[in-house]
Formats: sequence, structure tokens, C-alpha cells
Amino acid sequence: MITIESRENKIYKETRKLKERKYRLKNKRYIIEGIRITEEAVKAGAAIEYLLFAESIVEHENMRNLLNNDYNKYIISNELFKNLSCTESSQGVIGVIDNSLRLSDKQGNFYVLADKVQDPGNLGTIIRTAHAADAKGVILTKGTVDVYNDKTIRSTMGSIFYMPIIEDSDLSFTKELIKNDYKMVVSALDAENDFFSENLSGNIIITVGNEGNGVSDEIKELSSVKVKIPMPGNAESLNVSVATGIMIYEKVRQNLLDSIEMK
Amino acid sequence: MITIESRENKIYKETRKLKERKYRLKNKRYIIEGIRITEEAVKAGAAIEYLLFAESIVEHENMRNLLNNDYNKYIISNELFKNLSCTESSQGVIGVIDNSLRLSDKQGNFYVLADKVQDPGNLGTIIRTAHAADAKGVILTKGTVDVYNDKTIRSTMGSIFYMPIIEDSDLSFTKELIKNDYKMVVSALDAENDFFSENLSGNIIITVGNEGNGVSDEIKELSSVKVKIPMPGNAESLNVSVATGIMIYEKVRQNLLDSIEMK
Repeated sequence: MITIESRENKIYKETRKLKERKYRLKNKRYIIEGIRITEEAVKAGAAIEYLLFAESIVEHENMRNLLNNDYNKYIISNELFKNLSCTESSQGVIGVIDNSLRLSDKQGNFYVLADKVQDPGNLGTIIRTAHAADAKGVILTKGTVDVYNDKTIRSTMGSIFYMPIIEDSDLSFTKELIKNDYKMVVSALDAENDFFSENLSGNIIITVGNEGNGVSDEIKELSSVKVKIPMPGNAESLNVSVATGIMIYEKVRQNLLDSIEMK
Repeated sequence: MITIESRENKIYKETRKLKERKYRLKNKRYIIEGIRITEEAVKAGAAIEYLLFAESIVEHENMRNLLNNDYNKYIISNELFKNLSCTESSQGVIGVIDNSLRLSDKQGNFYVLADKVQDPGNLGTIIRTAHAADAKGVILTKGTVDVYNDKTIRSTMGSIFYMPIIEDSDLSFTKELIKNDYKMVVSALDAENDFFSENLSGNIIITVGNEGNGVSDEIKELSSVKVKIPMPGNAESLNVSVATGIMIYEKVRQNLLDSIEMK
């Protein structure tokens, strides 16, 4: 394995750039860090461009699994590794993932749209739930927190490698779905329809919004149905990743019923 | 208003002790900090023992609402306030809440039991969802993260003041519920029953477990029904606060159906 020791090294410079969001967007690549998440990426067959191991740690037995695959690998000096790492107590491994191709081969019949969700933990958890429930993908509007930042990726618990992510800045993807008869179901605190009275069969887009302000007007105008999740205990609101989970799983429940009825 | 300036002051010494969990348990009191959460406590009519305002901030207009109530209030020197604060950029207000009496006057027909949940954000979010759904209370087993730590309280978004919390170290409360015909429904990844096939009518205890290890054997042995939430997308697991939300809201949905049928 080659050892990278110079600041002028191309791999080093490319990786370093990916710490900034604008380069992640431009180069369609992002960084993952840590043993567990990197093992998840390998297991998922993610599009790993290369793996970087800190010099001091590459021979540690914890790394054994990560060295045993066909991806490109480099050793990098501890000093340079430190410049790439996002955490204070790093485990000494970083991966760079290509996300230019994220087309959905999923059979599911719904997407999840997160409109300007701000908290990385919430967005990561939404992606994790979407994966568990077999969504076709997670759509993000402009103004949503960076999906490829360290904390979002960690909160997905590996689901980031399974779930197609569509950054739909101009809403063209969403509008195309609607044109193809996807029903857009939007959660809103001021809606009149009770969520549980809603028929969710067929193709739908489950839509949730910003933690403080909910779904933006621009998205509401595209929607077919506005619903509210009932709150018999009169709390002000639900956490957005919990609300998304409740909506996604009502779709799962109705899908299960539909498949029983069709048999 | 009295201004506290001495380290020997009784109120100061009592409040300072409450930064440690053992004194929170012993004195059945806990600290809240910040304008929004304190306003929530006032609005909820929580059992506020007293409010403390940092000297430098008490005349700020943001404090106006918090000065306009009948609770005991003290001004405290900035130096002493700093010793009580849990955050680096404090808003200058702290409240001390009595939690010795948390009996449930709720009409709901279910409790939520969190067994050794470790993450403060998860526990806080579970309490928030339980409040929204009108649970009778949230039961915590020994080994669950401290419900009165700063981060848990913040994650409840004020629901901590509405939801009875039962710290059931010896499980006597839970066993009493079971004796009184509460059905205990436990979420477990290795269960055979599909959660959505389960009849949840009547009095139930919705039970979830630790982030890594799930529900402990001790609790599983008490349970009437073990269920798993289906994951058609084959993820390894769901976030525990999302899983709890899904289970709680299936109960809400069935309750709504029951109430329609009874009409």
C-alpha cells in the first residue's frame, strides 16, 4: 500500500476539499469516518472510491476487516490524517464515497420528502426509518441540512448506503413524480384531515417540514392532501423524525393490509 | 426581590447540589435552565419551587414574562449563577422544580415503559410523544438515563411538565399494573408476532428497550406479548424513539377506531 506523506498529494488534497459542503456538491463525493460506519459501507457495497488509514493504526487488529476487500487503500501519515478527521478521538480510518449515481432500484411505492429539516440527527433518523420501511428514496429540498455531514451520516446508522438521496433543489424531481400520479401527503399542524382517516394506497410522497416552521408554502402548494397527526394529549408538536416515522409506518401498515387483501 | 451574593446562602447551596443526580433523587427536585423551558414550566403550572435570575440579566425585556407570576424569585450574583448554570452561553434564568408528587390524573389507557434507554435525546423525545398521545405516564427502569438531566429535559420540549414520570427501580409499579390487567407489549427484534396484527385495545404498557441491546430479559419475562415492527427494507433496527412513536401511535389509531365503533 502506498503511504501518503505530502500535502501536495492529489488524494490528500481531494479528500481535504470534501470537508467543505460546496466541494461535496461539486465533486459528488463525501467522507465517512470511523470503523463501524466504514464496515457498513463495505458490507452495503457502497461506491467507495478509496479508504485512508492513519499510519499509527493501520496494523491494529480492529482494521483487519477493513483491509480485507478490493477497494483502493492508502496509508497516510498521522499528521495529514489529523487534517482530514472530523472527530477529536478518531479511530484512524476514513472513506470517500461516490454519490453521483443514486438511482432507485427499490420496489416500494413511496418516497419521503424532507423539506428544510435542520437537525442532522433528525435527518439521519428519517433516512434510517425510510430504509427500514423500504421507501424508494428520500427527497431533500433546498435549505435542508447537509445530508453528507458527519453527524447526519452517523445518525443513519449505515442506512445512507442503501437509501437513494435526491437533492431536489429546483423541485423538478418532485414535480415529475406528481405528474406521474404520485399523491403528495403533507403533514401540517393546521390541517383539518386526520392523518389516520387517509387512504395511503398507491404511490405517495410522505412530506414533512422544518422543526420550527413545518412544511414551506411552496411545497404545500404542490400537495394533494394536508393531514395532521392527532394529539389527544394536546402537546404542541411531535419531533419531526418521530412524526415521519408514524406516517411512514401507517403506509407500511396499509401496504401490508393491501397485500393480504390481494391474496 | 432578594439578591443572593454569598456562597453560604441556603438557596444557592441547595440549588448547586441539584446538579448531581444523587441529590436530585434524594431531594426530589430538579433544575431547568433557559427562557423557553422556564416559560413552558410556568405555562404548565409546574411545581416551581423558585426561579433564580442572574443579576446582569434580570432587567432584560426577555425576562418580563418570567417575572410576572407568583412563584418565589431571587436575583443571584453573576459569579454564583455561573456555578449553577449547565450551559456555556446561559440565558440567565434557572428554575427548581419539585417532582415529589407526579400522580396521574390522565384519562388515557396506556403507559410507556422505557427500559434502560441510554440517550437523553431519545428519552426526552419518547416523553414528548407520550404527552402528545395522552399516555398516563412514562415508566423508567433502573439503568435508564437520568430523566432530569439538562439534555433530556430540553428534548421533551416542555412535555416533562405534563407527563407523570415513574422511576420504577424495583418494578413494583409495573407489577401492580400487570396485576390490574394491563397487557405488557414488548418490542423485540427476535419476536415472531407482527406488531400491526396485535390487538392493542384496553389497558396496555408499551415497552421499549436499550439502543444497543433492546429490552432486558427481566422485563421480557413480565411481558404478555412480544412483537416486532416489520422492516420490509431490511434495515437492522429503528431508532428507539421512532419505534416508540410508531407503537404509541398504533395505539392511538386503534383507540380512535374503538371510539368510533362505540358511538
